[in-house]
Amino acid sequence: MPAYRTETDSMGPIRVPADRYYGAQTARSLVHFAVGADTMPRPVIRAFGILKKAAARTNAELGLMPADRRDLIGRAADEVIAGTLDDHFPLRVWQTGSGTQTNMNVNEVISNRAIELAGGVMGSKKPVHPNDDVNMSQSSNDTFPTAMHIAAAEEVVHRLLPSVSALRKTFADKAAEFADVVKIGRTHLMDAVPLTLGQEFGGYVAQMEYGIKAVEAALPMVYELALGGTAVGTGLNSHPQFAAKVAKEIASLTSLPFVTAPNKFQALAGHEPLTFLSGALKTLAVGLMKIANDIRWLASGPRCGLGELTIPENEPGSSIMPGKVNPTQSEAMTMVCVQVLGNDAAVGFAASQGNFELNVFKPVIIHNVMHSIRLLTDACRSFREHCAADMPETDYEALEYVVGADSGMVEVDQSALKPKAGGKVRKGIDANRAAISRIVNESLMLVTALNRHIGYDAAAKIAKTAHHNGTTLREEAVKLAPPLKDGGGVLTAEKFDQIVRPETMTGPGAG
Amino acid sequence: MPAYRTETDSMGPIRVPADRYYGAQTARSLVHFAVGADTMPRPVIRAFGILKKAAARTNAELGLMPADRRDLIGRAADEVIAGTLDDHFPLRVWQTGSGTQTNMNVNEVISNRAIELAGGVMGSKKPVHPNDDVNMSQSSNDTFPTAMHIAAAEEVVHRLLPSVSALRKTFADKAAEFADVVKIGRTHLMDAVPLTLGQEFGGYVAQMEYGIKAVEAALPMVYELALGGTAVGTGLNSHPQFAAKVAKEIASLTSLPFVTAPNKFQALAGHEPLTFLSGALKTLAVGLMKIANDIRWLASGPRCGLGELTIPENEPGSSIMPGKVNPTQSEAMTMVCVQVLGNDAAVGFAASQGNFELNVFKPVIIHNVMHSIRLLTDACRSFREHCAADMPETDYEALEYVVGADSGMVEVDQSALKPKAGGKVRKGIDANRAAISRIVNESLMLVTALNRHIGYDAAAKIAKTAHHNGTTLREEAVKLAPPLKDGGGVLTAEKFDQIVRPETMTGPGAG
Amino acid sequence: MPAYRTETDSMGPIRVPADRYYGAQTARSLVHFAVGADTMPRPVIRAFGILKKAAARTNAELGLMPADRRDLIGRAADEVIAGTLDDHFPLRVWQTGSGTQTNMNVNEVISNRAIELAGGVMGSKKPVHPNDDVNMSQSSNDTFPTAMHIAAAEEVVHRLLPSVSALRKTFADKAAEFADVVKIGRTHLMDAVPLTLGQEFGGYVAQMEYGIKAVEAALPMVYELALGGTAVGTGLNSHPQFAAKVAKEIASLTSLPFVTAPNKFQALAGHEPLTFLSGALKTLAVGLMKIANDIRWLASGPRCGLGELTIPENEPGSSIMPGKVNPTQSEAMTMVCVQVLGNDAAVGFAASQGNFELNVFKPVIIHNVMHSIRLLTDACRSFREHCAADMPETDYEALEYVVGADSGMVEVDQSALKPKAGGKVRKGIDANRAAISRIVNESLMLVTALNRHIGYDAAAKIAKTAHHNGTTLREEAVKLAPPLKDGGGVLTAEKFDQIVRPETMTGPGAG
Amino acid sequence: MPAYRTETDSMGPIRVPADRYYGAQTARSLVHFAVGADTMPRPVIRAFGILKKAAARTNAELGLMPADRRDLIGRAADEVIAGTLDDHFPLRVWQTGSGTQTNMNVNEVISNRAIELAGGVMGSKKPVHPNDDVNMSQSSNDTFPTAMHIAAAEEVVHRLLPSVSALRKTFADKAAEFADVVKIGRTHLMDAVPLTLGQEFGGYVAQMEYGIKAVEAALPMVYELALGGTAVGTGLNSHPQFAAKVAKEIASLTSLPFVTAPNKFQALAGHEPLTFLSGALKTLAVGLMKIANDIRWLASGPRCGLGELTIPENEPGSSIMPGKVNPTQSEAMTMVCVQVLGNDAAVGFAASQGNFELNVFKPVIIHNVMHSIRLLTDACRSFREHCAADMPETDYEALEYVVGADSGMVEVDQSALKPKAGGKVRKGIDANRAAISRIVNESLMLVTALNRHIGYDAAAKIAKTAHHNGTTLREEAVKLAPPLKDGGGVLTAEKFDQIVRPETMTGPGAG
Repeated sequence: MPAYRTETDSMGPIRVPADRYYGAQTARSLVHFAVGADTMPRPVIRAFGILKKAAARTNAELGLMPADRRDLIGRAADEVIAGTLDDHFPLRVWQTGSGTQTNMNVNEVISNRAIELAGGVMGSKKPVHPNDDVNMSQSSNDTFPTAMHIAAAEEVVHRLLPSVSALRKTFADKAAEFADVVKIGRTHLMDAVPLTLGQEFGGYVAQMEYGIKAVEAALPMVYELALGGTAVGTGLNSHPQFAAKVAKEIASLTSLPFVTAPNKFQALAGHEPLTFLSGALKTLAVGLMKIANDIRWLASGPRCGLGELTIPENEPGSSIMPGKVNPTQSEAMTMVCVQVLGNDAAVGFAASQGNFELNVFKPVIIHNVMHSIRLLTDACRSFREHCAADMPETDYEALEYVVGADSGMVEVDQSALKPKAGGKVRKGIDANRAAISRIVNESLMLVTALNRHIGYDAAAKIAKTAHHNGTTLREEAVKLAPPLKDGGGVLTAEKFDQIVRPETMTGPGAG
Repeated sequence: MPAYRTETDSMGPIRVPADRYYGAQTARSLVHFAVGADTMPRPVIRAFGILKKAAARTNAELGLMPADRRDLIGRAADEVIAGTLDDHFPLRVWQTGSGTQTNMNVNEVISNRAIELAGGVMGSKKPVHPNDDVNMSQSSNDTFPTAMHIAAAEEVVHRLLPSVSALRKTFADKAAEFADVVKIGRTHLMDAVPLTLGQEFGGYVAQMEYGIKAVEAALPMVYELALGGTAVGTGLNSHPQFAAKVAKEIASLTSLPFVTAPNKFQALAGHEPLTFLSGALKTLAVGLMKIANDIRWLASGPRCGLGELTIPENEPGSSIMPGKVNPTQSEAMTMVCVQVLGNDAAVGFAASQGNFELNVFKPVIIHNVMHSIRLLTDACRSFREHCAADMPETDYEALEYVVGADSGMVEVDQSALKPKAGGKVRKGIDANRAAISRIVNESLMLVTALNRHIGYDAAAKIAKTAHHNGTTLREEAVKLAPPLKDGGGVLTAEKFDQIVRPETMTGPGAG
Repeated sequence: MPAYRTETDSMGPIRVPADRYYGAQTARSLVHFAVGADTMPRPVIRAFGILKKAAARTNAELGLMPADRRDLIGRAADEVIAGTLDDHFPLRVWQTGSGTQTNMNVNEVISNRAIELAGGVMGSKKPVHPNDDVNMSQSSNDTFPTAMHIAAAEEVVHRLLPSVSALRKTFADKAAEFADVVKIGRTHLMDAVPLTLGQEFGGYVAQMEYGIKAVEAALPMVYELALGGTAVGTGLNSHPQFAAKVAKEIASLTSLPFVTAPNKFQALAGHEPLTFLSGALKTLAVGLMKIANDIRWLASGPRCGLGELTIPENEPGSSIMPGKVNPTQSEAMTMVCVQVLGNDAAVGFAASQGNFELNVFKPVIIHNVMHSIRLLTDACRSFREHCAADMPETDYEALEYVVGADSGMVEVDQSALKPKAGGKVRKGIDANRAAISRIVNESLMLVTALNRHIGYDAAAKIAKTAHHNGTTLREEAVKLAPPLKDGGGVLTAEKFDQIVRPETMTGPGAG
Repeated sequence: MPAYRTETDSMGPIRVPADRYYGAQTARSLVHFAVGADTMPRPVIRAFGILKKAAARTNAELGLMPADRRDLIGRAADEVIAGTLDDHFPLRVWQTGSGTQTNMNVNEVISNRAIELAGGVMGSKKPVHPNDDVNMSQSSNDTFPTAMHIAAAEEVVHRLLPSVSALRKTFADKAAEFADVVKIGRTHLMDAVPLTLGQEFGGYVAQMEYGIKAVEAALPMVYELALGGTAVGTGLNSHPQFAAKVAKEIASLTSLPFVTAPNKFQALAGHEPLTFLSGALKTLAVGLMKIANDIRWLASGPRCGLGELTIPENEPGSSIMPGKVNPTQSEAMTMVCVQVLGNDAAVGFAASQGNFELNVFKPVIIHNVMHSIRLLTDACRSFREHCAADMPETDYEALEYVVGADSGMVEVDQSALKPKAGGKVRKGIDANRAAISRIVNESLMLVTALNRHIGYDAAAKIAKTAHHNGTTLREEAVKLAPPLKDGGGVLTAEKFDQIVRPETMTGPGAG
């Protein structure tokens, strides 16, 4: 560590690294909250950058801050927003429950960076004071919940929904691709009447649409911002027009329809909006869990499972056994869904624990909400690209590596993946049409199609005999050769093939 | 048990009590699923009554059922709806996961009751067959999820929302009543700047409004019905117009905007709508938990707690100590909220466990959703009537007793509670105005009001000395007598009283 | 309601039904806590009977109560223990969080029943006073947690563990029965190397043993009783020897090793023991979920699933399709497991919410713990009797009916089930040996057995060709006829059959 | 990125960074599982180092591996154990559900590092092959669960239990320190009979002891290792003595009593042991939540809360208001407890989702278990050092900074914290004895002490009047001056002071 400088707060002087913008209160938090490895989510830091810039602009507009200071804060905040100062935000989730220390971390970094931009002395608090200027008209108690909402809304709108929608689209494409593939239906895991594989995938599309709708239904609450409530919700020490104007400013900076919350006491002490959003994320997760499970079950085998689908082989399965393709994307997805349900349990518990004018479980709430959003976003993208969708083949010999922003590890640069020369497509989920057809035709459930032609009793006898003998319906039907009710002789093989056509059983009115 | 009759299903004959309408499949379920004490929720049975009546009418309209059979089914179904046949639905939640046995229980009861109405022989299945007639165009796989949605929607709209809204209204009334009561704010449980008690209660109103909005946002999905999907979602064996028409019929019978679900595969195999509704119920619960906790903390004491509120004394507290009023309604409410969160965990887990064309965790889902709805409904009513609201005094010497429908126990007839003669009102939550005023005036936080008049340093010195000596700000201010910045001499007791007025600190712009 | 009498408490007179033993405080609770349908679990009422009897005996032994009063209380308590007074305990779970009202309900019922036994006047509180006598040396704050522990321990030891152990035994029997059935192993749902069906069932036995061990490991804490702590844990108003002696008395009455808790402050304000027990119940549940899922997957089909097992057909599956046996017992079991996990979430949340000298979430804790115990007990019994075990056939034409104690409904008398004449056995879980054998022999994984004989490359080529052609290993091996490494010519059909024997691959060292 | 090399697996060649030891399968996982930011917990990587070393030694002992290869593997594994190769393990939690890719990551890193030590060519797989040598006698399916158990046991024994025990000890010291501080008891948040502050802290000690006992009760199961089960639990391809010997080796390397699991099928497909451990961690957490809540409530104020305790002021509270010390350590602790409950929900769900011979939710299980262990460990240490315990003052001007291993951020070097010169002690939790004494003496509950001396009715009258007038018991007692029952005249102030002594009410037998 090359050099240090001294920063001070009301507790006294404290040493900080010379090359870090953070100040005394951040340093104190590093001493007192060395708990776990979870740092405050980056989108929350970014949201704070937006918030601080918007507050400076609003204060300037209301005549409370000179233009040069507004601009210095704005320039420093822009760097926070862009993420170039991410290395200056080391604080943990497990700190004070109001997130005060992260608010101060932001105030300190913007102050010192703004001072640097102005040619001043870091730590001098001049010309941009972390509290008096960067935090003007604000309190941790209203900034932190505001940053929570901005971060959640931005990540949902800009990352989660596009990723989920892309996967939904892939399933819709597959539904079209598989529209004519008639297959056995299964209820209670047992053979049931047929449907098309396209219908089955259409069900997945519908499940995802409910998840999307749920998330969208939760967003309006999340667009409501606490800022302007200051310390207890009354707005003490803020201009009467500050709340509405700053929300408008944030809306403008983000292009998202943020508004000031109608009631600031709720906005500080309750967290209904993020609880509801977490419930919506769970709604999405339960559908994805079912879908990912279906895919891996339908692709099970290659010989001793259901074997109706094939999925891409991304990693070595068995070195000797061809066709052993472990459904690893399904496994990652289902694990993510499990985590989202666990996270939701934490969110609800935390949101219920407010007292009087403040809920001091804010960091744990936003940690879990952002975790769920991130995991669902990435898992949907991964599942689409590496399992569901037809994609260009990747050139694994042209991988580029970088130090990962999240892990600090040398890892593959996802933004530099190249398709393999030759333009071949690696097929995503595919129908094993031969197997599907064989299976549905083996099903004894198809006997229902004979009812109208040979009567219920004869049909049941055929099915019973086939079940007993382990034969097909067709074999036993021909052997029994029951008279046709329409008077056209007995049931022959040809007649059987005319009647027993699963494809006629996949809609209403049939059967 | 006076007498038996024999009913049959495809497994053979089985003995049932002569005075019960249920048949063979219900009896089998009683043998095979003697698990726990949780019977299928009554609102689900009622919903089945509505569904069966609607199906009969739709089948008749489509020319599939003669009018007399439609009417017989309708009359029997009306009794199911009214609840007069509740004793004929003994099945447990812990049965087959599609709820098939409850569907059959309904089919059997309606069939036998309709037979009875028609003067037929119970168990004869003539003239109204449980499967061919009562279950016409249906499958357990689409009826049960339909009944789940009808039951949830009816209970939410007709019971939950009115009860929650009434409590919200009570809090709004209290907010108005307490609008001028200035009190200490508390953040991190620590003394903070003041607000009014009305503002604090306004925060509760806002929290409840988010809960209500969340529930309302979830309802549109719940209004979508699975009926018409039959066994696997294709609608096989149902008329092409059945799905849309029966939903319309159900909407007409319930006066709720039910529609047919856009995708039946999802409707059988996913349960996103009830998962989302459960998340909304949780959103409501986390707010109620915070509110009920606040009330009991603010009413704590009488001497050694916060003592800012008084609440009704409903039960003996201490036999010797006056003022020991245990906050029992808060305790019941917070326990209910805990249960709602536990129930929500079960719902999400269950909803994720579908496979292929069916989710077979339907009964556990609806059991938990209905439990949460019921508990929140009753707890809000109880909290309002017995804690929050000003109410007429109850005449405990005029109680009537009945056998409770839920418990089978002799218990108080809630519908026959009478007010005590004399028309006295039992006050609900009340402000302990003297205590609130004393507390806020003791607070050192009020020193902030002096800043503008004597400067930050002098103000801090006064607060520090008062903290050190355990005295009041006023005492130390007068002792220190700092010069006033506006040149008007030094700070006197009179001036202090003019400046330090908490009531001026409860809005934006002040301070 | 024939007649009323008047009871009084410190709040004044109140009307109660003449034929009920409960008094004023119970009646008040009925008015104020009409919340939900969940009455206090019967085992808690029974536990209170034990506790009250033990307290009276201890007080008498310590010279604080005359022998005649002890005996009157003891006789009334015996009736509470036996359950004959169950109709006198109508109170809800959702009451005061200390369970005070249930403690008073017990005090009132024992008092009035004892008065009746003594020929006194009900409501006169003479010669047995509900507070002074029945509640002597006690407080709700120590009685209720004591009753919670007694109830949980009794139900675990006398009901849960026997039921779970019986199912474990059934699986152990099945493991022996299936010891020689070689089958395909499945990992990631994909074909893997073989094992025996006996080994697979042995895994189930082991899973259940962990569940049993977990529950047993939690019991010692549950055997520690709060009684003697009185109102805040200090034991104020109780004899110094009361705590230890009354625990001994309870141990003697229950034949369970109860002791007095080493710290009464924890015993009133914390609920670690039941939280840990709930975690143990969850441990049991996660194993049962996996087992029940395996069973239904292995029995899936009959044609289009895995079809390795058959399970009893208890209810009509399809009316026309033989072999459609829905795995209803698995479904009930997995739903129960889901509920146990939801209940566990409620228990942990509630147990964390104590304040100072009391946790006031006691009823919701014990409600959920008892619910889990009951459901697991019943589901294991049901799964064993109606699915897993070979059992005598039930005579469905000889069913007896009673009014169910839990439901108040006319339902099957489980204690009067009779075996069908002829002594036939209804097979439980059975191996579909032909199918299992066919499936394992189709598996390409068996190629690994050839490695040592023809080399890895030749083996892989055989598997690859078979996979490509959809043929068997045997077919392709004979076609390729690779040279044997031991010099004995080429691979023939006979040689193949000698080498590729799945049964040699089910233990260490093989392969 | 300076340079690349090519690695290959059965899927073909792939480019990896020249300075990383990982190979083809790790690189593929980086491409296919770019999901979230959660890397596999370091203790799991360390556990794999131990496992690989133990396996090599066991294989050598069984004559399956030459000594030089064993030693090369051992030396590379030692570096994995020491953590010096941590930068070579970039894989995410959200990968294949068996953890195969992490097992391969370890195989590749040890292989390449061993090759390097032997002077070979990285990627050549000679002389140490990642599969044939490093993974000898193993499968991902048994190594990963083994590493899960080793990691959990090591972290519990070496980190969690010491940290929790240290906090327990601090509370025990405080209990002794506060043994004579008589204070008001509070039940239902309401004033109750007195106890000592030492007793209250003794309750905390007891709560923590239950948590510790619960964790210890879960350990024996965790000591049972899956290794030796290989792919499906049969142990195919492993030496019959491998399982027992390798467990012994692991026990020797870790000095922890690991043994081979009695049933390997359960060990691969069930996760009862970690589910139970997670339940034990929850048991610990619910106690810590209650304790941390009590501390912050008792320290609330300074003027308008309960104000019975003081806690260290670690960060700036209010810049102007002395005594506003936010209970930030309590807040971090309670947030951690909430997270532990959320994590536990995820663990149970995941553990229930096994199928046949494998549970493929292993990474999500161990992620959550390790997260809970880590958070509880750190939060207990932080709470002790920065809140509960008396500690030397920290010299904030002598802080050293490092790049944090967890965060990759420049942060305070916790291992280099220095005490401030002068050796002053910063007091931890302290009793505000004056306030406590004032509060308890104000309590009307003390009137119970007068019962024996002036009778119940006179005592109640005194309390009622004091409550009504807002005066003290003493004032009203002297005013009323009731006759003493022992004939010694009337109640005087002196007599009152002799009788009403809260300190006599803090044990059994008193009152």
